[in-house]
Parts: sequence; C-alpha cells; structure tokens
Amino acid sequence: MIMSFDRLIEKIVKTQNPTVVGLDPKLDYVPDFLKKKAFKKYGKNLKGASKAILTFNKGIIDEICDIVPAIKPQAAYYEMYGYEGVKTLYKTVAYAKKKGMFVITDGKRNDIGATMQAYALAHLGEVFVDGEAYEPFGADALTVNGYLGTDGISPLLSECVKRDKGIFVLVKTSNKSSGELQDKELKDGNTIYAEMGKMCEEWGKDAMGKHGYSSVGAVVGATYPEQLAEMRRALPNTFFLVPGYGVQGGGAEGVSHGFDANGLGAIVNSSRAVMCAYQKEECDERDYAGAARRECIRMKEDIISYLPRIAL
Amino acid sequence: MIMSFDRLIEKIVKTQNPTVVGLDPKLDYVPDFLKKKAFKKYGKNLKGASKAILTFNKGIIDEICDIVPAIKPQAAYYEMYGYEGVKTLYKTVAYAKKKGMFVITDGKRNDIGATMQAYALAHLGEVFVDGEAYEPFGADALTVNGYLGTDGISPLLSECVKRDKGIFVLVKTSNKSSGELQDKELKDGNTIYAEMGKMCEEWGKDAMGKHGYSSVGAVVGATYPEQLAEMRRALPNTFFLVPGYGVQGGGAEGVSHGFDANGLGAIVNSSRAVMCAYQKEECDERDYAGAARRECIRMKEDIISYLPRIAL
Repeated sequence: MIMSFDRLIEKIVKTQNPTVVGLDPKLDYVPDFLKKKAFKKYGKNLKGASKAILTFNKGIIDEICDIVPAIKPQAAYYEMYGYEGVKTLYKTVAYAKKKGMFVITDGKRNDIGATMQAYALAHLGEVFVDGEAYEPFGADALTVNGYLGTDGISPLLSECVKRDKGIFVLVKTSNKSSGELQDKELKDGNTIYAEMGKMCEEWGKDAMGKHGYSSVGAVVGATYPEQLAEMRRALPNTFFLVPGYGVQGGGAEGVSHGFDANGLGAIVNSSRAVMCAYQKEECDERDYAGAARRECIRMKEDIISYLPRIAL
Repeated sequence: MIMSFDRLIEKIVKTQNPTVVGLDPKLDYVPDFLKKKAFKKYGKNLKGASKAILTFNKGIIDEICDIVPAIKPQAAYYEMYGYEGVKTLYKTVAYAKKKGMFVITDGKRNDIGATMQAYALAHLGEVFVDGEAYEPFGADALTVNGYLGTDGISPLLSECVKRDKGIFVLVKTSNKSSGELQDKELKDGNTIYAEMGKMCEEWGKDAMGKHGYSSVGAVVGATYPEQLAEMRRALPNTFFLVPGYGVQGGGAEGVSHGFDANGLGAIVNSSRAVMCAYQKEECDERDYAGAARRECIRMKEDIISYLPRIAL
C-alpha cells in the first residue's frame, strides 16, 4: 500500500525540492489590483476579501506547481474571513490538487473520539449524505495537536490507512515560548516534546510507508536546530514538517539537521517570504506570482546546498 | 470593565442552571422530517445536510433559551459538512446570541503569533475589509489548546480584554487516554495538566472579572472528579468548562467538585443526550426540541441537587 508521505516523498525527489509553500493569505498581502477587481464584483466585505484571496492563491499555485511539491494553507487565515473564507480554503485545496500538488491543511485540529473523527472526515476523508459521498475539504495531510493522547489520534490513523493520507503532530513548535510547556523535563528525564515525539513513532507503527516513513509526521521548528537534530535521531520513521525558516529566523544550515542521509525525512515551510516576495523585490505587483516563484527557487537552492543529493 | 465570564456567570445565576448544551449535530441526529424537507429544497448534498442541521439547531435553541444559559457548538461537526457546514456554524452562533444565549465555540484552536491572532479575530473579534468591520463568527468564548505556550494565548487575551470575550484552555480532558501525556509527572512533582492549569491562572491575571474569575477558563473533564477537585483548589480564579457528563460517564456528584462555595466556577456540558433526547424518549420526532428541553431540565435538577444555591 502507498502511504501519503510516500507520495509526498516521491514529489520531493522529482522536484529535488524539500520545501512547502505556506498559503497564509492576509488581505494585506494581496496586490491592490486583485483586491479592486474582487471588491468591485463582490463588494468590500468578507466575500470580496475571500474571492481576492482565492485569485491570489491560484496565481501563486499556477506559477510554482512545477517546482514546488506541496502547499500548506493555514486554516486560521481562511476562518478569519468567515464561511466565505472557508470556501476559499476548499477551493484552494482543490485547485492545488488539480495542479498535481500535495496539500497539507495546517489546522492543528484536536479533539477526542467521535469529534476527532468528524475532523478527520472533514479534512482527510469523505462524508456521506443519504448514501452519497462528498469530500468536505479533501487535503492530503492535516496538522494536529496530540495533547489529548491516543483517543485524539486513532480516528485520523484510520483515514490515513484507508485513504492514503498523513498527519503532522505538533512536537516542538517554532515559536519563542514553545519551551514553556514543551521543554519541561519529566521525571524520567525526557522533555515533554521528546515524549510527544515518542508517541508519534508509536502511533505510526501500523501505518508505515515504503520509503521508511509512517503516515504520522511531526512538526519540529526550524528555530530549534539542536532539538531538530535530536528528534531526527530519536524518530527514524517520523517525517518532519519544519516551520520557522526565514521570517521567523530559522536558517538553511539549521534545518538541514532535520533530514536523513538521503536528503529526505523533512519538508521546510515558508509562507510570508513567498507570498510577499513582490513587496520585498519592489517589482510590479502584477508580477507577484513571478516574484513568489523566484523566492521559491532561492529558498530551494539555499536549503539543498546543505543537503546530500535527494534520492530514494 | 465587565469580562466575558461575568456575563456567563450572571446568566447562570439568573437561570440557576450551570449547564451548557453542546450542539454537535451529526446528520444522524437530525429527525427525518427535517432532513427530507432540506434535501428536497437544497439537494442530498453537503448544502442540504447543513441546512437541515441549521433548522435542527434553531429548533433546540428556541426551546431551551429561557432555561439554559449557553450553547457550545463543536466546530468539527460543522467542518464535516464543508463550507456549507461552516456557514451553519456562523448562523447558529448568530441565532443563539439573538436569543440571548452565551456562545462557546468549541474549536480547540491553537497556533502562534499572527496566526493565533487570525483565529482570535475569526472567532472572537472583528476583521477589517477596506476599513469596514465584520464579525466572521462572533462567539463569546472559544476553547483553545495551550501546548504552544504564551505566544499562542496572548493574541486571544487582547480580544478578551478589548471585546469582553473568554477562552477555555484544555487542562485535563475527559477522554480515556487523556492521561498519556497530561498525567505525566514533571521533575518538580507536578503533572503536565497541573502545569497547564497554573499557566491558565497566570494568563488570566490581567483579565480578571468582577465575580472572581478571569477571562481564561480551563477545560477539566467530568470523568476525572478527583482532578476536578484538585484543579478547583489550585485554580481559584479559573472558570471551568466541564465536558464528559452523561454519555461519557461523568456523574452529577463528580462534577460538583468543580464548583466553588457559591455553586459557581464551572459549567457542565451535555451534547448527545440533549440532541438525541427524542430518540431515547421514543417520542414523536417532531417533538425533538421538546424532548431536548425535558432533558435539559432533568440534567439541571440532577446537577444542582449536589450544589449549594447558586448566588453571587
């Protein structure tokens, strides 16, 4: 059986690019010409904002889909524009998949039992209405928070196995205060994040892919290279999603600690630097997607310069 | 300044009812006559399902709004029906507020910095589109997961203070496996859940309400009465949301440990037992909302029988 991260890994090898573009589109990031057009057609409201964002996203996806393996839309930035924003999330996921990209919905969802199953069906599965099946959001993978333990993870695992999907569990996050809880030392000398990492390896045991990684990945921040190296050693079958490169301060040398000897085992995220590349370049805003592509290439070159040739 | 939980506490005192009805509406819970009507009008699809759920919710709200202080829609069950489901979440929140109820969106959201701010604005705040303000979801309170530390909580606190809102942070959840991580003992002898509880007290310090509770509440499960008592003693300024009563196995005597000497300090949730009361009663499905009301009264009487008279 092909597991979700096998598909992701194969796309990474093909593009020689272990990065993912975060689509976290605040309205401020959207060029004026797109906003004007959407506001004129739909009004200066949540619907107009959501439509402007969708066009913005599609433009970036068109421009990067041949060189970047995956996108990671962040649910918060879509919920921010109400149900119209959530519709844009749905349409963004569908569009990227049509263009051959792997889609990680960054929702950090968490709950228990039947409720977690509802999230699993919502984002990775299908829902039946009077016998007809529908994919509510249809992502390939979802970020989740494991604070609630196995009850919060099992419902996802069955979708992973059944439908070739993946999850990334928060282990060591990239933010400054992540240590307040995550770095606390347990009685046995382990930190809380290491304990969470151990649980990921455990959860992944029954969902192993053919390339050495299970369907249960982990989020480990680029801003903590030492912990990234520690987790890479401790969790040989856990694929990493690495946020915090670029704007948050993580560098390419640092993130290289998250990879294995084949240049695999991790995918590094960049959001704002790609979406707002046209502002940094100070190019014509109509070239926003071109600027995004140029930043993707720069980022890729930067990161792979510290890695062995990526190969299966 | 009146803080969010002051408003909730005043509603609890007025109704003498420290319970909240969880609106977690699977399509299976909706009576056939409502489904048939919605499917006929909107089709047997996610839209039809979402419209049936909205009508179902409104019927329950109409019937309980004079005797129950709050509802708690669970985001997962709305996302399960795609963006149409999320529109039903929005409309359910708005309808309950119009009827005078306090609305807790159960989303267990978590992220950092700007992204957490997007969630805060989405669920508790307002978002500006070209100078015009819109409330994307407009709840009174949101459940959140504190695994990421202060960076994930601060953006919520500013909404709480500015707009009279509240949050409930997961401390000790009601599920069987909650102990896998939450009960682990730290080097200093504290458990992880107790540490999380301590952080809630700390976060709430600058958002104290006039009735002795801050805007930062905690989720502590009815299924762990001992820990509920322990947390009540340890966290004098933290208001509790207590899930797990009824179907999950928590009893009224057990949940009484979450309350203070005035019969305040906690609100107990019931979802399925209320929504599906008509199935258990085996009454006419057209009386589903009446059955929900009868179950609410039964639950209230059960819970307050173990409490002192609720008073400020």
